[in-house]
Amino acid sequence: LKAEIICIGTELLLGDIVNTNAVYFAKELASIGIDLFYVTTVGDNKERVISVLKNAWNRADIIITSGGLGPTEDDLTHESIAGFLGVEMKFNQEIADKLTSYFKSTGRVMVKSNLKQANFPEQTDVLPNNYGTAPGIIYNKNNKIILTFPGVPSELKSMWELTAKQFLISMNPNVSLITSKDLRFTGEGESAIAEKVSDLLNMSNPTVAPYAGRGEVRLRITAKAENENKALEMIKPVEKEIINRLDKYYYGSGNDNLETVVGKILTDKCQTVAVAESFTGGKLAERIVSVPDASNYFKMGLVAYSTEVKINQLGINKELIKNHSVYSEEVAIEMAKRIRDISNCDWGIGTTGLAGTKDHIHQIDDEEIIISAGTIFVAVASKDKVQVRKLIYSRWKREDIIYLGSQASLNLLRLMILDKI
Amino acid sequence: LKAEIICIGTELLLGDIVNTNAVYFAKELASIGIDLFYVTTVGDNKERVISVLKNAWNRADIIITSGGLGPTEDDLTHESIAGFLGVEMKFNQEIADKLTSYFKSTGRVMVKSNLKQANFPEQTDVLPNNYGTAPGIIYNKNNKIILTFPGVPSELKSMWELTAKQFLISMNPNVSLITSKDLRFTGEGESAIAEKVSDLLNMSNPTVAPYAGRGEVRLRITAKAENENKALEMIKPVEKEIINRLDKYYYGSGNDNLETVVGKILTDKCQTVAVAESFTGGKLAERIVSVPDASNYFKMGLVAYSTEVKINQLGINKELIKNHSVYSEEVAIEMAKRIRDISNCDWGIGTTGLAGTKDHIHQIDDEEIIISAGTIFVAVASKDKVQVRKLIYSRWKREDIIYLGSQASLNLLRLMILDKI
Repeated sequence: LKAEIICIGTELLLGDIVNTNAVYFAKELASIGIDLFYVTTVGDNKERVISVLKNAWNRADIIITSGGLGPTEDDLTHESIAGFLGVEMKFNQEIADKLTSYFKSTGRVMVKSNLKQANFPEQTDVLPNNYGTAPGIIYNKNNKIILTFPGVPSELKSMWELTAKQFLISMNPNVSLITSKDLRFTGEGESAIAEKVSDLLNMSNPTVAPYAGRGEVRLRITAKAENENKALEMIKPVEKEIINRLDKYYYGSGNDNLETVVGKILTDKCQTVAVAESFTGGKLAERIVSVPDASNYFKMGLVAYSTEVKINQLGINKELIKNHSVYSEEVAIEMAKRIRDISNCDWGIGTTGLAGTKDHIHQIDDEEIIISAGTIFVAVASKDKVQVRKLIYSRWKREDIIYLGSQASLNLLRLMILDKI
Repeated sequence: LKAEIICIGTELLLGDIVNTNAVYFAKELASIGIDLFYVTTVGDNKERVISVLKNAWNRADIIITSGGLGPTEDDLTHESIAGFLGVEMKFNQEIADKLTSYFKSTGRVMVKSNLKQANFPEQTDVLPNNYGTAPGIIYNKNNKIILTFPGVPSELKSMWELTAKQFLISMNPNVSLITSKDLRFTGEGESAIAEKVSDLLNMSNPTVAPYAGRGEVRLRITAKAENENKALEMIKPVEKEIINRLDKYYYGSGNDNLETVVGKILTDKCQTVAVAESFTGGKLAERIVSVPDASNYFKMGLVAYSTEVKINQLGINKELIKNHSVYSEEVAIEMAKRIRDISNCDWGIGTTGLAGTKDHIHQIDDEEIIISAGTIFVAVASKDKVQVRKLIYSRWKREDIIYLGSQASLNLLRLMILDKI
């Protein structure tokens, strides 16, 4: 079965909003084995919507529209479909009653134009919308299917999940379903990760594909099978093999990120962490705190942005800074140790470095050390272990250097808690 | 002149990437007064690309394509256009030489397929690409214009800015250009802001339109005129009138945000700030530090996430917490004052509150105080002034409450430094 998506809305043609509905449908259609050959965007204009419907009717079995179901005069998707099919619009009392009681229950005033949403083209059924006032339609005749959705992403998604998806699966019974699982890696670049699984990248079912993100690499395993469980069964051995080869870099799957993974490990082990940040400037604390119930394992963060604060508040030795520069492994280590001591936590993290675009020149007696822009140091300390990493992100943007520094810190903590380094 | 955009790439139809090129072109075309009626997305398939070109040719004066200019066999935009126009592909020696020297200069190996990018349809000119290997084409004949761009957003944008935009403006000389300016407000909701300028929202040139963001409202003033300077002249008096009416809420324009605006004010006044954060958990420090050269005015942040740290590190009085709960105006004020003292800065900010979904019950002797989820307190202190705000964001998401808390803190600081409250 071939599908075509039609997105209706002048605001899309003015560039006011990015069309995320199209990408959602594209992904969903792929997952249930329906080919998508065209996506068309058209404004709120009946004549043009009808011309686009004509094209789609000639080249697709399934037409999916989004947008144009609201109560205003601009919303004319259903009118256009009626015009295209050559049928009348029909008032649906049941939907009108639902609309009336919906407005009553929310305490909002229903104006007459809202009842426009109870008119539907003849020969179509209602596609229910449980989260908004605008239902869609299902047309299923002459070997053609038309489904309409409102433009509001949350309503569209719930209508798809609750009704439309199953309906299309039932129309297309012998097709293979596509199921994917993302494995997440950090601490190594895309090409190095890909190289270690290069033989697996040529498989056909399941397939394995690498995706590079900021400070991480994903490997997506995708299987086609008659149902989701079978697909997951096919994914399992490949997943095991990949994790086996890349154990050190593998940190999670699906929607995991380093802060949720580290949070879970700390919770499981009943351990706590505190951070002393210089160039990451609060980013590290912010990521840790973004996880609900982080207060169970996160006690304290110090953003020691100036050298003065590093000395006076954190208690870093002046001589250490003088001898090594404030941007050094030695200072990062001392920051991690001191914040652990002060906070009385199991783990301390220290970050120092240059997130700006200027190199730094440090004078030691007669000698000059040049620390180049983008050079950062992250350290993690426990009571009896300490590790530090020097990383150089030259020519990266400030916000990326800060993010990558927080990423490297969290990963170093993860590896040390798990005793993997 | 009417334009149509064609986005070419199977990856767009699989939902792997969001189509941001379409929204970029839509905005740009609107700004130079060219109507956009259709956007079509099609896969890497010659026959289907040609059928889409045919439709576009019949209904548009200008066809703009993105994608399909790479060196692989899948990249067939130019071949499709040649097929559609009924012309041959022609080798361009000049471009081939440029490609060769580009590869030499970057130290990369040029393979034979790269030279495919030096073939162009006859009857077309080259649309130069200074940031990549794939140039586009300009076709300008029979009252039709075709422009092709690669799919890489950065290359596409530079080609548009450097060449294509001026070319299209010159083709459409009598049209009005559209220029906009965004004014930014915070501390008041969209409807209240809109109400204070409701008479201006009905003007026709310039127009004024409100946009609600997270923790802020934008008013966009848009003028149509024969050139940008004239449009800006028309915007000026409206801008002045709006700022006049909404002075207290107005904080900046264009790409300003509260952290850049506050950074500029602190720099100008040679003043410094330190922050003590509880529920914002580092977000406030992170936003301040995201501005280059923040080290000139930001010295120290303390994420006092646990009550213990608030008492031991920040020196908040135990009795104060006992008498008012840790989530209180009194504690927020004390946090702001203490961090200012400790850091020896001009300004101190304190934040405390409940970003989670659970209410908190505080016991004072026999009395219970219930502090509901989403209740936050932000305070700002200088040597001789202090102000605090209580805000309630019930049923907001954790990350939004944290962001809105940082927004309210920065705005309170802004207003106090500027002596506006």
